[in-house]
Amino acid sequence: MSRTVLIYSGGVDSTVLLAHLRAEGREVHALSVDYGQRHRRELDAARAVCAHFGVPHRVADLRALAPLFGANALTDGGVAVPEGHYEEESMKATVVPNRNMLLISVAAAWAISLRAASVAYGAHGGDHAIYPDCRPEFAEALDRAVRLADWHELRLERPFVKMDKAAIVRRGAELGAPFALTWSCYVGGGRHCGKCGTCVERKEAFRLAGVPDPTDYVA
Amino acid sequence: MSRTVLIYSGGVDSTVLLAHLRAEGREVHALSVDYGQRHRRELDAARAVCAHFGVPHRVADLRALAPLFGANALTDGGVAVPEGHYEEESMKATVVPNRNMLLISVAAAWAISLRAASVAYGAHGGDHAIYPDCRPEFAEALDRAVRLADWHELRLERPFVKMDKAAIVRRGAELGAPFALTWSCYVGGGRHCGKCGTCVERKEAFRLAGVPDPTDYVA
Repeated sequence: MSRTVLIYSGGVDSTVLLAHLRAEGREVHALSVDYGQRHRRELDAARAVCAHFGVPHRVADLRALAPLFGANALTDGGVAVPEGHYEEESMKATVVPNRNMLLISVAAAWAISLRAASVAYGAHGGDHAIYPDCRPEFAEALDRAVRLADWHELRLERPFVKMDKAAIVRRGAELGAPFALTWSCYVGGGRHCGKCGTCVERKEAFRLAGVPDPTDYVA
Repeated sequence: MSRTVLIYSGGVDSTVLLAHLRAEGREVHALSVDYGQRHRRELDAARAVCAHFGVPHRVADLRALAPLFGANALTDGGVAVPEGHYEEESMKATVVPNRNMLLISVAAAWAISLRAASVAYGAHGGDHAIYPDCRPEFAEALDRAVRLADWHELRLERPFVKMDKAAIVRRGAELGAPFALTWSCYVGGGRHCGKCGTCVERKEAFRLAGVPDPTDYVA
């Protein structure tokens, strides 16, 4: 059975990817990263979903790096989380510098020590133009670096890279993904705010997919 | 003045690189990483050298990642540090999985938040065939990924990549690098052991360079 390290946030995309990889018969090891995000609630969601699937799960603690990230809305309590759509300039406040390379580096280190065949993550077609490290050419360069990071070639997998978020929700519904356990909101309260960029996108994905949204939104 | 983040171990190569970048008039910010290495003494050496130069220095604490790295001689006290030359198979015990990608990822995150123009590191021509992530094709792939990690292109610099360690020691002697403050030994004692791979290499580099070696070796 092929062993895979999944970069796992506890959100919709990576939860559907977890269900998808298990449906393919993979042995999945899930990795979440605590980088000091104010929406730490997502780490509890990640634990709950991994327990649901009986998947081994680790949370890598990178909180000590937060001072290196400068001012951004995800790790600095002094910067407000913007509301609205990801197309808006204000959403640039949610960029954590070099987050994707960091996550992939940590996952690849673990994958090498586990002798896993691949690292998978939930990049998708709707990833946003505000994040430089969601560009396909960035992912391709990193893919090549990961292949060369060990003597045994390690693959980087992005199975959803041609799907949009609504298609991912539909795939999750087919697989019986536990959507009610997942977490998206960036604001960091006890319920989904319903107004930040990631809540707006979450709502819209369920609506476009025609799948009932079990989320408890404040607004 | 061009701002650069230097990946700084406190060893000979990166110390000479620090002196070299300063001689070029760069504004250097030094980054050391605590990844649970048993030779933590190198972090004290890094602090001492940065104080000597008056260079801002941060130590990023990645100790929480040590359990992900599996069994290796640098982060696992249960694995012995091999003695002898780097050409030997036994030296593979010193491979920390994906260490270079991790260090570069953290340095690039800091560089983006500092609006630095580049990340520099001390890769050199004598880097070892036992380390997959010292291969030039790995460095080139990562270089491309780093250039794309932000909207402002960030360069990855390896100014010593065509030099061997003896040439680096000669360059350090020209620049008055404070060799006596640096640390190489992987064993983790209070003095350089003189027998591990990195001590053997350090001794040899000074001898080949014809530069007096100020190091206090046990053997």
